[in-house]
Amino acid sequence: MFTGKLGDLEQALKILPGIGAKSAQRLAIFLINQNKTNALNLATSIVEAVESYFNCPTCNMLTEQSPCEFCQDSFRSSEKICIVENTQDVFILENIHEFKGRYFVLGRLLSPIQGIGPKEINFAKLMEILKNNIIEEMVLALPPSAEGETTINFIASQAKDFVENITRLSTGLPFGGDLEYTNQLTLAEAFKRRYSV
Amino acid sequence: MFTGKLGDLEQALKILPGIGAKSAQRLAIFLINQNKTNALNLATSIVEAVESYFNCPTCNMLTEQSPCEFCQDSFRSSEKICIVENTQDVFILENIHEFKGRYFVLGRLLSPIQGIGPKEINFAKLMEILKNNIIEEMVLALPPSAEGETTINFIASQAKDFVENITRLSTGLPFGGDLEYTNQLTLAEAFKRRYSV
Repeated sequence: MFTGKLGDLEQALKILPGIGAKSAQRLAIFLINQNKTNALNLATSIVEAVESYFNCPTCNMLTEQSPCEFCQDSFRSSEKICIVENTQDVFILENIHEFKGRYFVLGRLLSPIQGIGPKEINFAKLMEILKNNIIEEMVLALPPSAEGETTINFIASQAKDFVENITRLSTGLPFGGDLEYTNQLTLAEAFKRRYSV
Repeated sequence: MFTGKLGDLEQALKILPGIGAKSAQRLAIFLINQNKTNALNLATSIVEAVESYFNCPTCNMLTEQSPCEFCQDSFRSSEKICIVENTQDVFILENIHEFKGRYFVLGRLLSPIQGIGPKEINFAKLMEILKNNIIEEMVLALPPSAEGETTINFIASQAKDFVENITRLSTGLPFGGDLEYTNQLTLAEAFKRRYSV
């Protein structure tokens, strides 16, 4: 472990996802070793990005403008809403070109074990939207993990009186995957949810 | 790389799935290093297993008895048939306790690029079964890969006049998976095949 300013940088880098102790040291050395302008430019970019992005007052997505580009896009249907965990998921879903409605970012998923309840996930704001708008379909595009399932079930149960059709992403075998390397829960669900060819 | 008999063993071990050059060397050394009785016992087990297993004349599954345990099990419905790529997939599916019908093992998947056509995958034998029995449902439990899709589409198109309901395993997000680490094809399909909660 480094000490002094280099140690501070190492610790700061370790907060990044996927960056462990070794990678943090390598990155820290790389940053102080390379062209100073580049490193300072990185620092400035971080500061500027952090300072200019904020949560969209409508959908909670991180944005530079208010309302965000999705909320002010009049070509998007306001009768469809897609609920995601975080801002990154919005961009991931945009890449597949399947959805032309509004988004809503929860920020995190329910986790009774970690003490994360409805108040921590922008739930009240979502309910306001559902109550005050005509929503034909709400897609719960949340991951099929323990927290994801809890969140899907909770939101679906609370929203069922205000939304015509509440859907979730299909679960099953990932494309390119093999039966052998698929976990039992996924395989069992894929079998139960088999569909006609 | 080893030479002599150890080199031969190393090469022989490399045919195992997931065993690369390094692992093969490690295993080879381990085998000659350990208790001789154990190593010879392994060799005998390999010979005995290879010699006593053959393909079930009905379903092609590797078995020690004819017909295999699944084909002779009268508690299994003969009106449902599950098509799999190989014998191992049968055991994997048995583990999830979802299916109580017959199996049929193709042996491999169609691959026009590799020159693997209907003659190479026990297709004629499958059609015989479908034509001569009342089959209510055929589950194509094949992987959603390029070869798997080709095989599913081909078998479904050829079998549609003989089977009431032809199904395939659900495709979508694997449980425990995250949107971020899901490939685009899988995510797009999961979105298209979203279902009501």
